[in-house]
Amino acid sequence: MTPLVSIIMGSTSDLPILKKAADFLDAMQIPFEMNALSAHRTPIEVEKFATTAADRGIKVIIAAAGMAAALPGVIAAMTPLPVIGIPINSTLDGRDALLSIVQMPPGISVATVGINGALNAAVMATQILSLTDSGIAERFATYRASLSAKIVKANKDLAEVKYDYKVN
Amino acid sequence: MTPLVSIIMGSTSDLPILKKAADFLDAMQIPFEMNALSAHRTPIEVEKFATTAADRGIKVIIAAAGMAAALPGVIAAMTPLPVIGIPINSTLDGRDALLSIVQMPPGISVATVGINGALNAAVMATQILSLTDSGIAERFATYRASLSAKIVKANKDLAEVKYDYKVN
Amino acid sequence: MTPLVSIIMGSTSDLPILKKAADFLDAMQIPFEMNALSAHRTPIEVEKFATTAADRGIKVIIAAAGMAAALPGVIAAMTPLPVIGIPINSTLDGRDALLSIVQMPPGISVATVGINGALNAAVMATQILSLTDSGIAERFATYRASLSAKIVKANKDLAEVKYDYKVN
Amino acid sequence: MTPLVSIIMGSTSDLPILKKAADFLDAMQIPFEMNALSAHRTPIEVEKFATTAADRGIKVIIAAAGMAAALPGVIAAMTPLPVIGIPINSTLDGRDALLSIVQMPPGISVATVGINGALNAAVMATQILSLTDSGIAERFATYRASLSAKIVKANKDLAEVKYDYKVN
Amino acid sequence: MTPLVSIIMGSTSDLPILKKAADFLDAMQIPFEMNALSAHRTPIEVEKFATTAADRGIKVIIAAAGMAAALPGVIAAMTPLPVIGIPINSTLDGRDALLSIVQMPPGISVATVGINGALNAAVMATQILSLTDSGIAERFATYRASLSAKIVKANKDLAEVKYDYKVN
Amino acid sequence: MTPLVSIIMGSTSDLPILKKAADFLDAMQIPFEMNALSAHRTPIEVEKFATTAADRGIKVIIAAAGMAAALPGVIAAMTPLPVIGIPINSTLDGRDALLSIVQMPPGISVATVGINGALNAAVMATQILSLTDSGIAERFATYRASLSAKIVKANKDLAEVKYDYKVN
Amino acid sequence: MTPLVSIIMGSTSDLPILKKAADFLDAMQIPFEMNALSAHRTPIEVEKFATTAADRGIKVIIAAAGMAAALPGVIAAMTPLPVIGIPINSTLDGRDALLSIVQMPPGISVATVGINGALNAAVMATQILSLTDSGIAERFATYRASLSAKIVKANKDLAEVKYDYKVN
Amino acid sequence: MTPLVSIIMGSTSDLPILKKAADFLDAMQIPFEMNALSAHRTPIEVEKFATTAADRGIKVIIAAAGMAAALPGVIAAMTPLPVIGIPINSTLDGRDALLSIVQMPPGISVATVGINGALNAAVMATQILSLTDSGIAERFATYRASLSAKIVKANKDLAEVKYDYKVN
Repeated sequence: MTPLVSIIMGSTSDLPILKKAADFLDAMQIPFEMNALSAHRTPIEVEKFATTAADRGIKVIIAAAGMAAALPGVIAAMTPLPVIGIPINSTLDGRDALLSIVQMPPGISVATVGINGALNAAVMATQILSLTDSGIAERFATYRASLSAKIVKANKDLAEVKYDYKVN
Repeated sequence: MTPLVSIIMGSTSDLPILKKAADFLDAMQIPFEMNALSAHRTPIEVEKFATTAADRGIKVIIAAAGMAAALPGVIAAMTPLPVIGIPINSTLDGRDALLSIVQMPPGISVATVGINGALNAAVMATQILSLTDSGIAERFATYRASLSAKIVKANKDLAEVKYDYKVN
Repeated sequence: MTPLVSIIMGSTSDLPILKKAADFLDAMQIPFEMNALSAHRTPIEVEKFATTAADRGIKVIIAAAGMAAALPGVIAAMTPLPVIGIPINSTLDGRDALLSIVQMPPGISVATVGINGALNAAVMATQILSLTDSGIAERFATYRASLSAKIVKANKDLAEVKYDYKVN
Repeated sequence: MTPLVSIIMGSTSDLPILKKAADFLDAMQIPFEMNALSAHRTPIEVEKFATTAADRGIKVIIAAAGMAAALPGVIAAMTPLPVIGIPINSTLDGRDALLSIVQMPPGISVATVGINGALNAAVMATQILSLTDSGIAERFATYRASLSAKIVKANKDLAEVKYDYKVN
Repeated sequence: MTPLVSIIMGSTSDLPILKKAADFLDAMQIPFEMNALSAHRTPIEVEKFATTAADRGIKVIIAAAGMAAALPGVIAAMTPLPVIGIPINSTLDGRDALLSIVQMPPGISVATVGINGALNAAVMATQILSLTDSGIAERFATYRASLSAKIVKANKDLAEVKYDYKVN
Repeated sequence: MTPLVSIIMGSTSDLPILKKAADFLDAMQIPFEMNALSAHRTPIEVEKFATTAADRGIKVIIAAAGMAAALPGVIAAMTPLPVIGIPINSTLDGRDALLSIVQMPPGISVATVGINGALNAAVMATQILSLTDSGIAERFATYRASLSAKIVKANKDLAEVKYDYKVN
Repeated sequence: MTPLVSIIMGSTSDLPILKKAADFLDAMQIPFEMNALSAHRTPIEVEKFATTAADRGIKVIIAAAGMAAALPGVIAAMTPLPVIGIPINSTLDGRDALLSIVQMPPGISVATVGINGALNAAVMATQILSLTDSGIAERFATYRASLSAKIVKANKDLAEVKYDYKVN
Repeated sequence: MTPLVSIIMGSTSDLPILKKAADFLDAMQIPFEMNALSAHRTPIEVEKFATTAADRGIKVIIAAAGMAAALPGVIAAMTPLPVIGIPINSTLDGRDALLSIVQMPPGISVATVGINGALNAAVMATQILSLTDSGIAERFATYRASLSAKIVKANKDLAEVKYDYKVN
């Protein structure tokens, strides 16, 4: 099945974080692909990927990178597709990656999620695709309801917790 | 014409910044609406807005707020539509707003752009709508080409600049 | 017994931190309740809670949240009761939560304590209730005296410590 | 009339900021006093003030200070009354004052509001006093309604704004 | 004369800052060129520039950019030449640009100077070229001596200053 | 022997860090005392200590505290003796303590050393006492020479290190 | 008269800030000298200064510098005298200078005051000299009393202020 | 063989980090030396080293230091050779070292790499030496190609990964 979402990571060491995005897209039955590409180490491959993604049928790109995280912005510069950027925490608590991704110059836009926020990147991709695919929209509605239900359930469990009170 | 994009601001004092988003959507011929709503001062209105936006035909929401900027996240929690968040710089260089918007908990996602990045919020909305509207996609392609042309032109002008050299 | 204080947490994973607040209120013999509610995942429940808390006899609300911590501010927006906010350290050393809670816009106020400062949230709730309940006030005075006594005692122990001196 | 709230500032240069607190208390018809005291320059006066405030009938203390802002915490250490701390921005965007006020050690609590947040300090004092004074509670409810009305009104005005659209 | 140094700026609005680099290279009699190129707005031009600079005889590249400053790193990824990066302060005091430039991933290196440090970028380029050009080396030695002389002279002037002493 | 230096800590949990100060003073044969006092939990004891230290023969005070570290400044406010402040890292990497100690208002001065810099606090105390005690001055000169010798020795060892070279 | 204090600045542009130190020392009748020296631009002069200051009768050195402020630490490395460091705000709100001065490695200590804290540097120098000069000690006691008196006076004035109350 | 690169570290505890620089230079067949020198603890040795390095045939200096990292700047002040600075993370995530190294005053320049970026320091040294040594240039080109190949290979492996999908 033709992938609708392309997940790009700057380094395969980010795979454990990006797995949360993959899992979510899979649960939403959204076909996706996953690639390792680096703005700094494979610039030619990045260009080839970015300039052809739309023609291959990709609708949304998710790009994750750490440190001086140029990848999401560089891809966004070479495609008309919406690019969702995930700042990866590898140094400085991920602050360097966050600023490198979110502070784009006027005209080139990256939809940035929180540090290591792979799940939310997939959620945003799902929301974009929901605009025109009612099947995805329904599955997303179910997911949203479950989020709320999980907390309501946790709250019930909480009511039954017994504490050993002690002033510290 | 039914608006496709809804621009929400936490305070009308943010209007001069958000005008850049409005101007861009207008240039792309994307119908939009603009409202002032506050997560903290008009929570009921926010709820009414967020829970009905999709039914009114809105496709993308752009929400801007400063300081403890809860607005984009609170709206995102109550709609399936993609929400683009703009951190407004009113205190602390906008860092408080940036972190309040981008660091969303798992499951509720805000597509965050740079501090005061109203233009880029409109660009992202345009890219999302381009996925299914070829007219918008064409106008966006023209815009993108002009971005590049502007720098190429600036570069030519630069070649003709004459400096007064002086070691400081 | 009708609870006077309501402790709200954005996620039950914050329970170990909030236990310090519960323990303190218990020691002060202040009846309280504890709930998990999320501004982003259960907005309807938050609204129901916030708009009815005063009528149920609650006097002070303690709300804890991490990351883009909208919970305390959103509750404060929908109740006349004083809301004490606890920034939880789950990312960025808790700085994102601190700024998301303390930097409220004019008119909606959250009484913010330090990062993970659950004990001090309970102390502040106790001080507010002490204004009109002499029993609580007395127990609080005893607690305060014990704080001082603990350091005075530590100081005595210190006088008897023997060091192995060594210049590093 | 005996003051219920005492506003303390570390320096009279903070007066223009604290005026917003005074104005609000005045509008709420809450009697208050205002004093300049410095934890570092008048420690004896601070001690005298803090240890006698409760006996003089004060119910809530608002303390504002900038830089290494010890004043709110030092007062809190010597009174059972709730102390609301206002970090004043005089250096480093007020970050030094914010951390100096909010990061209190366990057992001594300061209810911190945002940087230069004098209005919100008065709002919090009003909310605390509203718990036992129905007149104040009513005036506060009116104020809250007006906050919301102001934005609803702004929103109406917004609907009539005409823009000169132009892509930048 | 064939330029040895190429100064690249992300936006011509950075020209007033980069003039200090141009002036210095001129004083050192080092031929240079100056171009506006953007990693995000003219990626094709950047690639063409970076992949051909060495062949055109360029020895050192100076690249300046603000915000999510990808330009120096992206150029460094496509040339064997040493790239000196200048973080431009356009937002967040230049901290976003500093981290976007200096925190490069292993294998691709940018020699970063201070925020808005155009003069020092030219100084570093001069030091690199001095390794193999004795004329440049001599002119640089003269400059260095003048730096020291300027302070020694300032010191003499200082000895003659008369103050109006007054305790504040 | 009458102590010349008084080491004050806000909490006995800081003892392992302050031991480095004690060890150094001991090696310099400078008599000292060590006490636990808290600006927030034992304000009366702090006042008693600070106002009498000079009369008891103390010449220099070293005060360490973490978080909203008011202790050094509060002591400095009540004594003419030089106070050396040590920011303790207990939260936020010690940044809150650093700013709470170093950013004193005009007129009350704390000589601040680095985060957890207990050794350097003792070094500074030693340098102050060296001004008028030639025995201490001599022992300090010996220490200084040993610092340098340690690195010179490390350098010799380095020359003999054999590496397993491998490009990562 | 032989100077007891030597004020060193990294650049004569810091003179307006350092004037506050000079004024204070003058008021305390402490003879001082003032020099411009740069760790980076006149390293030889710095070495000459630092290694001979003690022999010339200097007792305390005050060193101010901005940006990568190496001056105070480099001087401290070459003299047994206490060195007081003043971080100058020329970039990044002075944070770069603060960290460059206060975070000294173990063994070499700089007594750091607040950003632009020239007055407090002079206060600390005065406190050190007060230990052995009763004339200075007396003048310092008078100054301290005046600090407190100024606030007490301000407080009286405050009592007479009339406000125009207005809720914002 | 005469070393072309000199690696200087402020403390031998930085050796594990600097080994990456040594390994890289070794792989590039660039002769180098390695020394421990401290701007604060061995200023005389630093001066001797810096003022003679060029005459000994050194072409590039790599200097690493943590905290108030004066070493790279102090060396740069006393040599015409290009100095590459490595901020070492020993406190505050290395931010103190980064600012202490990169924020040099006009006229004295340090080519700064990322925090703990020893490999990239060696890469930059190699690029500088490549300008005039074709053997090094060739080996560097081979290294660059391998960087890209590693990611291309990782990408292939990625295509074969099988996930256990699960929505969290």
